Amino acid sequence: MVTIDLNADLGETTAGNPVADDASMIKLVSSANIACGFHAGDPHDIARTVESAVARGVTVGAHVGYRDSAGFGRRFMDYAPTELADEVLYQIGALEALSRKHGTTIRYVKPHGALYNAIVHHEVQAQAVIDGIRAFDPDLAVMLLPGAVAMDYAHKAGMQVIAEAFADRNYQPDGTLVSRQRADAVISDPDQVADRVLQIASEGTITAVDGTLLNVDATSVCVHGDSPGSVAMTKSIVDRLAAEGVSIRSVL
Amino acid sequence: MVTIDLNADLGETTAGNPVADDASMIKLVSSANIACGFHAGDPHDIARTVESAVARGVTVGAHVGYRDSAGFGRRFMDYAPTELADEVLYQIGALEALSRKHGTTIRYVKPHGALYNAIVHHEVQAQAVIDGIRAFDPDLAVMLLPGAVAMDYAHKAGMQVIAEAFADRNYQPDGTLVSRQRADAVISDPDQVADRVLQIASEGTITAVDGTLLNVDATSVCVHGDSPGSVAMTKSIVDRLAAEGVSIRSVL
Amino acid sequence: MVTIDLNADLGETTAGNPVADDASMIKLVSSANIACGFHAGDPHDIARTVESAVARGVTVGAHVGYRDSAGFGRRFMDYAPTELADEVLYQIGALEALSRKHGTTIRYVKPHGALYNAIVHHEVQAQAVIDGIRAFDPDLAVMLLPGAVAMDYAHKAGMQVIAEAFADRNYQPDGTLVSRQRADAVISDPDQVADRVLQIASEGTITAVDGTLLNVDATSVCVHGDSPGSVAMTKSIVDRLAAEGVSIRSVL
Amino acid sequence: MVTIDLNADLGETTAGNPVADDASMIKLVSSANIACGFHAGDPHDIARTVESAVARGVTVGAHVGYRDSAGFGRRFMDYAPTELADEVLYQIGALEALSRKHGTTIRYVKPHGALYNAIVHHEVQAQAVIDGIRAFDPDLAVMLLPGAVAMDYAHKAGMQVIAEAFADRNYQPDGTLVSRQRADAVISDPDQVADRVLQIASEGTITAVDGTLLNVDATSVCVHGDSPGSVAMTKSIVDRLAAEGVSIRSVL
Repeated sequence: MVTIDLNADLGETTAGNPVADDASMIKLVSSANIACGFHAGDPHDIARTVESAVARGVTVGAHVGYRDSAGFGRRFMDYAPTELADEVLYQIGALEALSRKHGTTIRYVKPHGALYNAIVHHEVQAQAVIDGIRAFDPDLAVMLLPGAVAMDYAHKAGMQVIAEAFADRNYQPDGTLVSRQRADAVISDPDQVADRVLQIASEGTITAVDGTLLNVDATSVCVHGDSPGSVAMTKSIVDRLAAEGVSIRSVL
Repeated sequence: MVTIDLNADLGETTAGNPVADDASMIKLVSSANIACGFHAGDPHDIARTVESAVARGVTVGAHVGYRDSAGFGRRFMDYAPTELADEVLYQIGALEALSRKHGTTIRYVKPHGALYNAIVHHEVQAQAVIDGIRAFDPDLAVMLLPGAVAMDYAHKAGMQVIAEAFADRNYQPDGTLVSRQRADAVISDPDQVADRVLQIASEGTITAVDGTLLNVDATSVCVHGDSPGSVAMTKSIVDRLAAEGVSIRSVL
Repeated sequence: MVTIDLNADLGETTAGNPVADDASMIKLVSSANIACGFHAGDPHDIARTVESAVARGVTVGAHVGYRDSAGFGRRFMDYAPTELADEVLYQIGALEALSRKHGTTIRYVKPHGALYNAIVHHEVQAQAVIDGIRAFDPDLAVMLLPGAVAMDYAHKAGMQVIAEAFADRNYQPDGTLVSRQRADAVISDPDQVADRVLQIASEGTITAVDGTLLNVDATSVCVHGDSPGSVAMTKSIVDRLAAEGVSIRSVL
Repeated sequence: MVTIDLNADLGETTAGNPVADDASMIKLVSSANIACGFHAGDPHDIARTVESAVARGVTVGAHVGYRDSAGFGRRFMDYAPTELADEVLYQIGALEALSRKHGTTIRYVKPHGALYNAIVHHEVQAQAVIDGIRAFDPDLAVMLLPGAVAMDYAHKAGMQVIAEAFADRNYQPDGTLVSRQRADAVISDPDQVADRVLQIASEGTITAVDGTLLNVDATSVCVHGDSPGSVAMTKSIVDRLAAEGVSIRSVL
């Protein structure tokens, strides 16, 4: 049976102010990247997100970020590697405590925002993130962009790696994403995005912007809930996968 | 053999700026109340404090506080109980991850500052703190002021409780501390304070400000490292205890 | 001509994540309570809110709060009065700098959230807020709940006071708000709320929950933009006022 | 008469926990770089620092930094330029309000930590800092490292620039500082440092590490109060300048 994992950022609620429609998204995804309080999320809202993930059988991941709530973790910060490793470890530990309270445990880690982008190429921070995760538990999986230097380091360390694809983003023929500077960076048609998810799940390929067929090993697709349009698009994807008999579930 | 535990607040360093002379204090105490990042402490400095505690055989406790680094956790905050419980749980989990990295585990929790003071009388917050600790591990001990309502709740919940005394503070005949508003609140003579620690350890009593002999069940004495004078006083206490053959060690 | 001021909380955006529909609300109100960065708002989003207020001719007020972005300023904090006064002053100064950049100046101060509620009765904090505002400029106006102890202090200090009413809240016969614990605390029917605004503007009265006619001296009505329903309600109010020939404008 | 300005970082106290010996330093310097709450400092401690500066006739400068109190502003952050300009403006406005309360006004701005270092070479951030300062007041002076790209931009904008030297740091023959990676980066002998300050004040030169005589146009020398040794060194400098008849005063 064909399966695919859908992951979304959840728990980025602070003081009751939501950033996304978590209540809708938790019903649609198989993996929840749950904020850990550094880029967003306060402990109680994080805990409630874990609770709803448990209720829906959604796999819990730690969405670790820079300690920059004012910038939502979207600004690169030049950490010393030992500091960064300990910040990653701190966040995982905090989320794990809230997860155990609700009867589950963290299964994977996905870096957030500027940290996610940095460790595509920043070797020191990439290694620090891997070190921080492994200091918690060498058996934790890590979710990353294929081609990221952090993915190499994770493989070298013998970690389980979840490669993710972005179905709503156009790809270059070399497998990198089309820059957001360009008008064709994002695909906004729900049907087209659903088609692409289906292709990733069924064929293991993505069609680049010039028609090149890219082999991807992505086992997870990132979906979004931060606007009414993005929730609707995610529903389209889920409906389409159901109609095609593709099962949505975590690889963990 | 007569023993007593000496505990001190450590790890309140942020960005390399220390609040206390941690390097001296870790050599003198048997229990380290280690900051968890909410009232003070950043992950890397916390981790280094844990590391030095492990190297010296000092027992690690979680010094949980209000999320108010701007106020160093010294201002009462009116949390909803479920929020407060999850904030306590979050902090314990974060410190536990850093502790395990360095081969140890949290053995007790001591609330900090305004939270410590609040749960002497604030029933809702007292219960929330107990709930937060027990959500992490019902077998964790808690360090509290004798007479605190939180101590009653901890006993009711079957938790191990460490009662602590303040040897450098004068006591009222009813067992409460003399208010800091009064000139005789604090005892600054190191010899006199050392005498009082010895009396707590050997006799289980404290002499109140009017001469009344108070029975205390304190098994730990709080010492300070936030000024050259306080470190010197702690050294006096340690020397005196050694001279009298009293062993300094954690009850855990 | 009959006039009324409509005020709303704006600029509570952090890192581009909005809490309310500021773009719609700025077109509807005459006074903008703009966040100052302590309970919410980062400098750039604050500045953009000021800019849009200037573009629409909306009066700028400083929405000062407790330094608790994690709690959105909704938790009481027990500040020392000199600390609180300086925190108020700091926030006003920061917003004033951003306002002058965009060619305007702060005309009034409205405390936010738990601070707003505290100074209804907390005499020390009420005086501290008044002191903080007057340290900036004794001629600044202050927007408060009628009956608040802070209003007494503001009057005693010779300040201009803007009394505000909550048209979507039921009132007790004694002029206080019906507690949110009760089912009839909030009025959700847009027409009924519009009626009440009209009555406040035209008659200077509010009908209490038992039918008692209360004389209120409110010259401003607080409206909300934090949900699609609340924006729609504000539009209903604005349309109704227009239909009845009531002009919406600041008293300043 | 020969004069020189001595500047020091002050007001980096948070919640009463000092980072430096402000009480000693305010008696020794002519210019106070006062923290603005982003990298350090809370409003009330900032205000008290301003108050003591006023009492001693010390010129007040705004020590603006990245919004990273956890990292003390020592980590580079990749801000968008409009964000950074507004963060600078916000900080200046906040400090100005506290300054006016105590009867003074900000006379100059000195960027702190990683921001200070970044704008030596980072053109976009350098321009953003200049823009933020000028949005507050085009007549404000700015204190910078000679050779910084920000200094070029400040000159181009017609701003008054205060060039500062580091008497306790060795210089390369090309006028840059010897890297802290090298053993001879810092000069720790108070007499030697006092000699160098005297040379800067009297001759306008610094002797580089290889003996090259560098012409510097520095009118201010940075001194430190964050350790007993650094305070003692500053006292040595002040005594030596007095003995040589050099007057310590701000250029503003």
